Amino acid sequence: MRYSRLFLPTLKDVPSEAEVLSHQYMLRAGMIRKLASGIYSFLPIGLRALRKVENAIREEMDRAGAQEVFLPSVQPAELWEETGRWALMGDELLRFKDRHQRDFCYGPTHEEVITDLVRREVRSYRDLPMNLYQIQTKFRDEIRPRFGLMRGREFGMKDAYSFDQDEEGAEKSYWIMFEAYKRIFERMDLDFRPVEAETGNIGGAFSHEFMVLAESGEDSIVFCTSCDYAANVEKAEISLPPESHRKRHKEGEKEALQQVETRGMRTVAEVTRFLKVDPSRLIKSLVYRTEKGDFAVLVKGNREANEYKIKKVLDVDTAVLASPDEVEGILGVPAGYVGPVGMPLPILADHEIRTMEDAVVGANVVDHHCLHLDPDRDLKNVQFADLRFAGEGDLCPRCGRTMEERRGIEVGHVFMLGTKYSETLRATYLDQGGKERPIWMGCYGIGVGRTLAAAIEQNHDRDGIRFPFPIAPFSVIPAALNPKDPKIQTISEGLYAALQQKGVEVLLDDRDERPGKKFKDADLIGIPLRVTIGPRQLQEGKIEMKLRKEAEGTTVPVEGAVDRIFGLLQDHDKTHRPSS
Amino acid sequence: MRYSRLFLPTLKDVPSEAEVLSHQYMLRAGMIRKLASGIYSFLPIGLRALRKVENAIREEMDRAGAQEVFLPSVQPAELWEETGRWALMGDELLRFKDRHQRDFCYGPTHEEVITDLVRREVRSYRDLPMNLYQIQTKFRDEIRPRFGLMRGREFGMKDAYSFDQDEEGAEKSYWIMFEAYKRIFERMDLDFRPVEAETGNIGGAFSHEFMVLAESGEDSIVFCTSCDYAANVEKAEISLPPESHRKRHKEGEKEALQQVETRGMRTVAEVTRFLKVDPSRLIKSLVYRTEKGDFAVLVKGNREANEYKIKKVLDVDTAVLASPDEVEGILGVPAGYVGPVGMPLPILADHEIRTMEDAVVGANVVDHHCLHLDPDRDLKNVQFADLRFAGEGDLCPRCGRTMEERRGIEVGHVFMLGTKYSETLRATYLDQGGKERPIWMGCYGIGVGRTLAAAIEQNHDRDGIRFPFPIAPFSVIPAALNPKDPKIQTISEGLYAALQQKGVEVLLDDRDERPGKKFKDADLIGIPLRVTIGPRQLQEGKIEMKLRKEAEGTTVPVEGAVDRIFGLLQDHDKTHRPSS
Repeated sequence: MRYSRLFLPTLKDVPSEAEVLSHQYMLRAGMIRKLASGIYSFLPIGLRALRKVENAIREEMDRAGAQEVFLPSVQPAELWEETGRWALMGDELLRFKDRHQRDFCYGPTHEEVITDLVRREVRSYRDLPMNLYQIQTKFRDEIRPRFGLMRGREFGMKDAYSFDQDEEGAEKSYWIMFEAYKRIFERMDLDFRPVEAETGNIGGAFSHEFMVLAESGEDSIVFCTSCDYAANVEKAEISLPPESHRKRHKEGEKEALQQVETRGMRTVAEVTRFLKVDPSRLIKSLVYRTEKGDFAVLVKGNREANEYKIKKVLDVDTAVLASPDEVEGILGVPAGYVGPVGMPLPILADHEIRTMEDAVVGANVVDHHCLHLDPDRDLKNVQFADLRFAGEGDLCPRCGRTMEERRGIEVGHVFMLGTKYSETLRATYLDQGGKERPIWMGCYGIGVGRTLAAAIEQNHDRDGIRFPFPIAPFSVIPAALNPKDPKIQTISEGLYAALQQKGVEVLLDDRDERPGKKFKDADLIGIPLRVTIGPRQLQEGKIEMKLRKEAEGTTVPVEGAVDRIFGLLQDHDKTHRPSS
Repeated sequence: MRYSRLFLPTLKDVPSEAEVLSHQYMLRAGMIRKLASGIYSFLPIGLRALRKVENAIREEMDRAGAQEVFLPSVQPAELWEETGRWALMGDELLRFKDRHQRDFCYGPTHEEVITDLVRREVRSYRDLPMNLYQIQTKFRDEIRPRFGLMRGREFGMKDAYSFDQDEEGAEKSYWIMFEAYKRIFERMDLDFRPVEAETGNIGGAFSHEFMVLAESGEDSIVFCTSCDYAANVEKAEISLPPESHRKRHKEGEKEALQQVETRGMRTVAEVTRFLKVDPSRLIKSLVYRTEKGDFAVLVKGNREANEYKIKKVLDVDTAVLASPDEVEGILGVPAGYVGPVGMPLPILADHEIRTMEDAVVGANVVDHHCLHLDPDRDLKNVQFADLRFAGEGDLCPRCGRTMEERRGIEVGHVFMLGTKYSETLRATYLDQGGKERPIWMGCYGIGVGRTLAAAIEQNHDRDGIRFPFPIAPFSVIPAALNPKDPKIQTISEGLYAALQQKGVEVLLDDRDERPGKKFKDADLIGIPLRVTIGPRQLQEGKIEMKLRKEAEGTTVPVEGAVDRIFGLLQDHDKTHRPSS
């Protein structure tokens, strides 16, 4: 492709609409343009990069034995009513009526449609296992679309659904997808981690998220520095610290529980600043409301209670933090002064509470807290459990070593669904004995545009995008510094033709622009390899090759340059590496 | 791909929902399934064929210098209000509100969105010409979706838009697309005709439709048997018959106008049966209402008046046939008895009327007609023009030879739009003199699924589809007649591997099914080449190759079979032909 003919409107200034870097760069590099809130048009180089992501996904899905289908975006309400999700889904589901006043939605996902298809067509165990996937546009009417493709409303997604005879088969299909996902993100040259994750509203038994690591990530994940345990902070289990860490004081040294006035001090920050203690010395006493009644939950002042873990420990469907008004109504004490001593509600305490021996707690008296609480001594009938979000420095539940916390962007998600949808929609098969059984399902998603945005969040510098080769819109950009000079023209055109001949995707910068502008644009759009054909080096019969990710280039003789460039591509770009 | 693992649910019976053959076969061959009225899921082989069509389009669009983009399906109402089409489009436009109660639609086309994009990004004559295209899903809420993919509601379309400085450039872009479209349908091995067409509601100056010829086509086209003139019947001009055809009677032989009673006879059929004359001897007198007033329009009893031509002759925007009540209100005579003699309205008569000399007409008296009308003698102040639909036997407007009428399916449409959208949306550029000018536009559509359906309407027999090689989901289906026989297994697996190695798309029928079932399925899904590996022929060391479109196969020795098969593919399949 010739740059002079390409629709590639780059921007010098950072558009005010864009908060995150990937969004800014995709706008500035002329990859996308906003049509409406959360709705974007892909311009030529944006689409090229998007298709690279799609094709990496497609090839690995095909290799894993999945079969591509294409399901409609407009879905009838009836199917969503069958699963109950028509009522459950809120305003995120974009609903409308057709001209005959029938209810439809723009599919935000395809569990209903695919399960309906499969229940009509699959009869026998001989038809299983089966894995069907598609790459299709979805719509989720986010209340606050933001960050460009990262949280858009109309977005491309690869969604796959596996169908098996039983749990064992379903798990096998699950792990095949898990491995395929690893290959997908590896071949895109992304730094990522698969992490254990909660299953959320989609239901199902277990799941993993695939996280592209980036400082700007919305999600926190923890992973072990020794073993391969990794999980998002919601899900991550926390190992109990060894006993030795727990006791520093001898029994006789301990001070007695002491009530002190803390007038008007309600928050952790206010109380600990006032009492001059570290927040890790305070115990937060929270009240959660569940379908099994109200519970007090204790976590350290510097920790956050994890609703998913509370629900799991209590085996309840909902656990909602009580509002200050509710707390006062339940306990007769303002929320900031609630404490575990004399607590009428059943108490759940995070494991970490047991490691404390001189803690600050609410006194259950307005404007008062207590000092010197020793949980072993002062708390009775407490159930200890893992109740908080994991973080940096917590111990790995597998090997007990320290875990690290990093930010990540969720780009893929694999779920073991079990029979949730197949039972509701009666998707069954006849087993070898002729007995009707529900099909076991898994579902597997990858956000296509989101992966592209995440790749940019991970790969950029102050000058622009640094595309990994496998998803770059073009691999090489020869910059002809003075394209009207006959010698430069001959060499750059020859290079362009020769590389294209070898199947390399080349963007020839043949524009009549200053060198500075050409370099700036090449850096901004992030083409991984730039080749400069300029008058100065050409006097010595040389041209320059420079990788986007490296600061300096190398000059090479014009003679044999095509082979040198192709060699460099083979070294760095998996797509040009000879298959072994 | 192994048939045993492919999700390919074929049906023995013709589904009752399907009226046309392509729809029946696509359902029976497991290519598509209906989700809701006019909304279809693509199953694996349906999607493979669809992608072939898409890729043929994509490659030729790219080759013609167009650049691929991807525009949102959900479009804000504001843009449609700017062009006035929000009000103009009826119920076909699927409208909805997002969660913030803003108006949107599911794009049935993208003129508004692309023109908006271009007006924001294009500044200078240096940015032109430009041609942007996409392959995207559209939604048109057809009142009566039918014929499967032929007239669905959710459907895939390639739409392209060209942007030029002036009319000359726009025409150049138009003809580049015209040629690209010819290549697209040629490379899919379809029998098609580009025909001159009306521009319809989309507006614009001139246009061509690309018609795939098929007896089941919804549209009629005429084309010259001598020159390359072709047009749809709405548009087709009709050459005046030579003078010699006109007069048979001498002046003296003519009979005088004679009023006869035709009580209760109103229609052409009733009157001509009653009077025992051929319908071609009657003159229909119709009343059209236009913004310039009412007009009487005369055509032969066996012809249909063409509203497009009437509008063009009168230079009006609307010309609507008056209802019987309206006719009686205007003329005071019931509609069936209106005639041209003494007609108070201005009269337009089709050229053919001049060739008549003894015609039957309404008498302008209830229950009466007149015989022996001679237009030359009896009609005054009549404007003669080409006013009717063309048909078989009419004369070519270019060369005067006879035209043929055929049925066709419109699969593509190219329009010269002019400045209709750019002026409304103020999409302008600065010319070389710095003057702001509207961009000249063209738009170019191809129905992707519709092309696939049309290909099947053109290529089938009573056993199923006969895919042309370039759009077949697979090129070859080796049918292993007894896959458990070790020798058959070895040979069929070897063939499968060797052909795949050569880049051939192979569907190995490795199912444990009877030969009859395998042949029936292969014929139904229309794989162009079947290779049979069966015990009988294998005794002689042979296998059979059979083209789907031929009745008989040929046996070839197992030795060298791969090369023979590959050679046959190169002879018949453009995709395997060595590029010259």
